[in-house]
Amino acid sequence: MDPAQLFNRHLDRLERAVEALHSRSAYTPFVESPSRKLHPEGAHAAGRAAFEARLNRPFESLRLCDTRATAGAEVSPYTGLPLGISYPRHEPEELYAAVKRAWDPWRRAAPRQRVGVCLEILARWESQVFENAYATMHTAGQAFMLAFAGSGASSLDRGLEALAAAWHAMDSVTTSASYERHFGPGPPVRLEKRYRLMPVGVAVVLSCGSYPAWNAYPAIMANLATGNPVVLKPHPDTILPMAIAVETARAALSDAGFDPNLLTLAVDTWEEPIAKVLFARPETAIVDFTGGQAFGAWIENHCPRLQVYTETAGCNAVVLESADVLDDVLDAIAFGLVLFSAQMCTAPQNIWIPGDGVRDGSVGVSAAEVRTRLARAVDRLVEAPASAAGLCGALHSEKTQAELAQLSAQFAGRIVRPSTPYAHPEFPAARVATPLVIELDPRDRAAAQRECFGPVAFVLTAPTRDAALALATDDAARFGAIASYAYTVDADWLPAVEDAFAMAGASVGINLIRQRPMNFTAAFSDYHVTGLNPAGNACLTDAAFVSRRFRIVQSKRELAGQ
Amino acid sequence: MDPAQLFNRHLDRLERAVEALHSRSAYTPFVESPSRKLHPEGAHAAGRAAFEARLNRPFESLRLCDTRATAGAEVSPYTGLPLGISYPRHEPEELYAAVKRAWDPWRRAAPRQRVGVCLEILARWESQVFENAYATMHTAGQAFMLAFAGSGASSLDRGLEALAAAWHAMDSVTTSASYERHFGPGPPVRLEKRYRLMPVGVAVVLSCGSYPAWNAYPAIMANLATGNPVVLKPHPDTILPMAIAVETARAALSDAGFDPNLLTLAVDTWEEPIAKVLFARPETAIVDFTGGQAFGAWIENHCPRLQVYTETAGCNAVVLESADVLDDVLDAIAFGLVLFSAQMCTAPQNIWIPGDGVRDGSVGVSAAEVRTRLARAVDRLVEAPASAAGLCGALHSEKTQAELAQLSAQFAGRIVRPSTPYAHPEFPAARVATPLVIELDPRDRAAAQRECFGPVAFVLTAPTRDAALALATDDAARFGAIASYAYTVDADWLPAVEDAFAMAGASVGINLIRQRPMNFTAAFSDYHVTGLNPAGNACLTDAAFVSRRFRIVQSKRELAGQ
Repeated sequence: MDPAQLFNRHLDRLERAVEALHSRSAYTPFVESPSRKLHPEGAHAAGRAAFEARLNRPFESLRLCDTRATAGAEVSPYTGLPLGISYPRHEPEELYAAVKRAWDPWRRAAPRQRVGVCLEILARWESQVFENAYATMHTAGQAFMLAFAGSGASSLDRGLEALAAAWHAMDSVTTSASYERHFGPGPPVRLEKRYRLMPVGVAVVLSCGSYPAWNAYPAIMANLATGNPVVLKPHPDTILPMAIAVETARAALSDAGFDPNLLTLAVDTWEEPIAKVLFARPETAIVDFTGGQAFGAWIENHCPRLQVYTETAGCNAVVLESADVLDDVLDAIAFGLVLFSAQMCTAPQNIWIPGDGVRDGSVGVSAAEVRTRLARAVDRLVEAPASAAGLCGALHSEKTQAELAQLSAQFAGRIVRPSTPYAHPEFPAARVATPLVIELDPRDRAAAQRECFGPVAFVLTAPTRDAALALATDDAARFGAIASYAYTVDADWLPAVEDAFAMAGASVGINLIRQRPMNFTAAFSDYHVTGLNPAGNACLTDAAFVSRRFRIVQSKRELAGQ
Repeated sequence: MDPAQLFNRHLDRLERAVEALHSRSAYTPFVESPSRKLHPEGAHAAGRAAFEARLNRPFESLRLCDTRATAGAEVSPYTGLPLGISYPRHEPEELYAAVKRAWDPWRRAAPRQRVGVCLEILARWESQVFENAYATMHTAGQAFMLAFAGSGASSLDRGLEALAAAWHAMDSVTTSASYERHFGPGPPVRLEKRYRLMPVGVAVVLSCGSYPAWNAYPAIMANLATGNPVVLKPHPDTILPMAIAVETARAALSDAGFDPNLLTLAVDTWEEPIAKVLFARPETAIVDFTGGQAFGAWIENHCPRLQVYTETAGCNAVVLESADVLDDVLDAIAFGLVLFSAQMCTAPQNIWIPGDGVRDGSVGVSAAEVRTRLARAVDRLVEAPASAAGLCGALHSEKTQAELAQLSAQFAGRIVRPSTPYAHPEFPAARVATPLVIELDPRDRAAAQRECFGPVAFVLTAPTRDAALALATDDAARFGAIASYAYTVDADWLPAVEDAFAMAGASVGINLIRQRPMNFTAAFSDYHVTGLNPAGNACLTDAAFVSRRFRIVQSKRELAGQ
C-alpha cells in the first residue's frame, strides 16, 4: 500500500498520540489483555501454534544473502530445552552493503511517508502479539500474562509514543518559507527557502534479554521515522521475539514499496559478540542500548562519534515512612518484588525505613516488625504455586540464580526471607525463585549500591526518616535509579521527599498502593530515564530522544526579476 | 526587578520570536544600523567613550575573589597597539566554587523566570552595542559597521532565536497531569503527576577570535534559560567584547535577585590554555565551541561525557554555471570575498566553474575570462581605500597574513589576483590585505580542501558543470561546509544542484545576487550548521541545540481515599 495512504489510515491514532504526548494523560490504544473477549476467535491458539512452528528450524526469512553461518542457542527458562532455532548470521560487510542499498529511497521519502509505514508496523506487531508473547515467555522468562502486555501493549504504546515524538519534532520544522527584506536601496529582495530533514546514518539498536520490546520498539520507531536504517542486535538469549518483530516490520516495509533491509537483525553469540564491530562501522551514527550498567557506561564513554542513547540500571529505592494501612503498602511492595521476579528496570530493591519504625495509621510499628510483615506479604503472594507462577515467571538467566545463592551465603545471618524455588504447575523444570529479602546496615551497603538483577531486596534502617531519604537519594544520584518510591502520609514531609529525589535526578512514585504493580509505567504519561543519574540517558519519548536523529539542510533561492 | 515581571515586560518580543522560529520568516527586533536617526542622541559618542575608558586598566568588575593573577594581551589589529587591559584570572577551583554557590536558586527557578532574565540580558546587551562594536573592532578586526551588526543585531537576533527555541522546548513539557485508569476491579486509580525540568550542569562556552558574539550569545541564552551556569572562555585575542557582555549580563542577573556567578569569564593565554581543564571538571556537562576544525574535532572525539556543540569551519564552495548578468554575480562573489576579509564562517572560498565556461545571458564566457572578470570585480571594491577599509576591515591574526604570503609563494604561477595591502585612511598601521585569488587544478586541490582563513579564493575549473557540482559537494561532505553557493539560470539543472548539496549534508544558497552580502545569514529564517559534515554539529537554534540541555524529573502521587 502507498505510504501516504498508510499515513492517512492511521492518522487518527497518530493525532491522539501527539495530543497525549503533550497532555501526559492516559492513552493506550493497544489491547493489553489476552482475554478471549478482546480478540478474534482462535487468535490465542493461532499465535501459540505460530510460535511452536518457529521451533527447531532455521529462521530463514531474515537471510540477506547466501551466507551459511548461523547463530542461536536460546533455551527456554521454562522447559530448560533449547528452542532449536538457528538465525542467519551475516558478515558486517554484507549486512551494511544491504543496508546501504536500502537507504536512499527511505531518506528521500517525506516524513509522513516514513511515519505512515511506521504506524503500519505497529499495527502489524499488534496483530502478532500472541505469538510474540510465547516467544518472549520462552526466552526472557516472563509469565504469559506479563509477556502479552510486555511485548504487546506496553511496548507498542511506548513505540507509538516515540513515533509521535519523532513526528512532532519533524512536523515542527516548516518545509519552506518566503523571506523578504531590504538590502540597501531599491525594492526588497525576496528569497524562497526550503528546509529538508535528513537522517544521520545507521542506528544500531541493542535489545535486552529480559524485556526486549519495551526499549527496542521506541528506538526502532524513532530511527525509522527520522530516516535512519536500523540494525537490531538482540541479546543472544532473547532473539526470537525480536526476530519475529523484525520479520513483520520488513514485510510492512516491502508492502509499502521500500527495501526491507532498512531493518535488519544482526545476531551474535556470547563467544563472539558483535556490538563493538557494529559501533565501529563508519556508517553507524546512532546506538540505542538497553542492558547492564557496565556495558552502557562503556558505550557512553567510548563512542564519542555516535549519538548514544542508553537505558541501563540503578539501585531503586523505596523510602517507607508511614501509611494509613501499612499492610496495604507492604502488599504493594511485595507485589513489586515478585512481579517477573523483579527482573524489571523499575522494580524496587532497597527499602529504607526509619530506625524508630513506621507509622501504621495511628500505631507505631518497629523496624523489625516491618521486616517481618514484608516477608509475610511476599509469602502470601507466592505460597500458592499457580499464583507464584503467574506473578514470578521464571529467571531469565542462570547468573541470577547463582547470584541469589551467593547473596544468601554472604548475608546468611541477616536474611529476612530466604529465596526458595516454587513448584511451577505447568513447567516442573522452570528456573524459578521467590524473593530473597536481606536486612542490611546502611553503613555497609555496598551490595545495595548496584542493581542486583532478580528477586533481591534489601531492608535498610536509617537513624531517622530524613537520613533514610538522604541516603536513598544519594545512592540514586551516585549509582543510578530508574524508578524510586516513597510512602508517607505526612503532607508536611512530602515536599521534602519530592525535592530530594528531584535534586538527585531521580523520578519518584509516592504512595502507589492501588496502582498495581507499583512499578507500572504508563506510556504517554510517565517519563522514563531522567538522564541525570548513572541509570542511562534515554528518556525514550522526550524531545531529546528524537530531535538529533535528523538534521536540517536548507536551500534558499533568490527570486529573479524583482 | 522581579524575574516574573521581566518575563511579562518582554513577553511580546518572546512570542514574536517563537512565531518566527517556526515560520522562518523575516524577524529582526534589534537595530542593525548605527545610523544617528535610530539611536538616542550621543549614543555613539558615549559608546566610543565607554570603550576608550576600558583601555589601559584592569577589568575589575569580573573579579570573583582576591586573586591577583591576571591575563590579557589583546592588541588592536587597527593600531597595532596593546589594549592594555588586564582581566582577573581565577583558579578553576575558585571559579567552580563560585559557580556552585550560584546554581541552586537558578535551577529551582521556573523556566519563565529564567527566560525573563535572559530577555532582559538581551535588551541590556542591545543598549551597549556602540561600546561593544568598538571593542569588537579593536580585537576581532571587524570594520566598525560590520562590528555594529556583528556584535549587535545579528548576534542578538541569534541569541533571541536560541532563547525562543529553549523556551519553546521547555514550555512544550506540561508541568502536571492527572492520570486515571483501572487497575483490576474497583474504582479507577487516580494519580497526580508533576514534571520538573532540571538542568544538567555547567556549560563551558568557547567564543572565537573573529566573530565572538554570534555563537556565544545563542549558547549563553540556551544554557542560562535551561538552568545551566555558563563559564565563558573567550579567545585570548578577543576578550573585551565578551568581558563587556558578561559584565552587563551579570548586572542583569543581580538586579533580578540571582547570583551573578551564573555567568563567569574564564580568561586564559596562548601559553597556558585552560579549555581542557574546564572540560575535565566533573561539574562541567556541556561545551559550546566555536573555532578551528582541529580543536573542534578534538573536543568531539575526546569528551564523551559532555554534551558537545561545535561550529568550526569548512571549505565553502561556489558552483558558478550561468547567470543572467555575469558581472552581477561576480560582484556578489567579490563582495563575499572582501567582506571582513573573508574571515567569516560563511565566506565563499572555492569557486567552481565548468571547463567550457559560464553562460552570461546568451553569451558564453570562457573560464579564463571569468577569472579575469572576477579579479576585476574585486578590484572595483577595494581600489578606493575608504571602500576597502569599510569592507575588508583588518586581519584578525598575524597568522592569516603569514598564510597569505605562504600561499602567494606556493602558487606563484597561478595567481589570478595578488593580495596587496590597502592604505587604511584612518589607521595607517592596520593589518590589512585584499583578496588573493588562485587558479587551481581540481586534481591537485589539497590546499582548497580546508578552510584558508582570510581573503583567499581558489578558482577551480572542472570538465563539466556536473563534475564541478560533484567535486564541490564531495569536498563539502568530506571536509566540511558551513555555507555553499550556486549560480545557475537553468531551471532544469536546479533540482540536481539542490539535491547534490542536500545529499552532501550542506546547505546551499542559489543565485544570491541582490542579497548583499551573499553570505548574509538571517536569524529565525536561515538554519546554520547542518551537523552532517565536518564543519560542526551545532545548528544553534533547532530543537537538537536546546532539548538535551534540560531533563525531565517526574513525581507521581496516588490520591488517597478513592
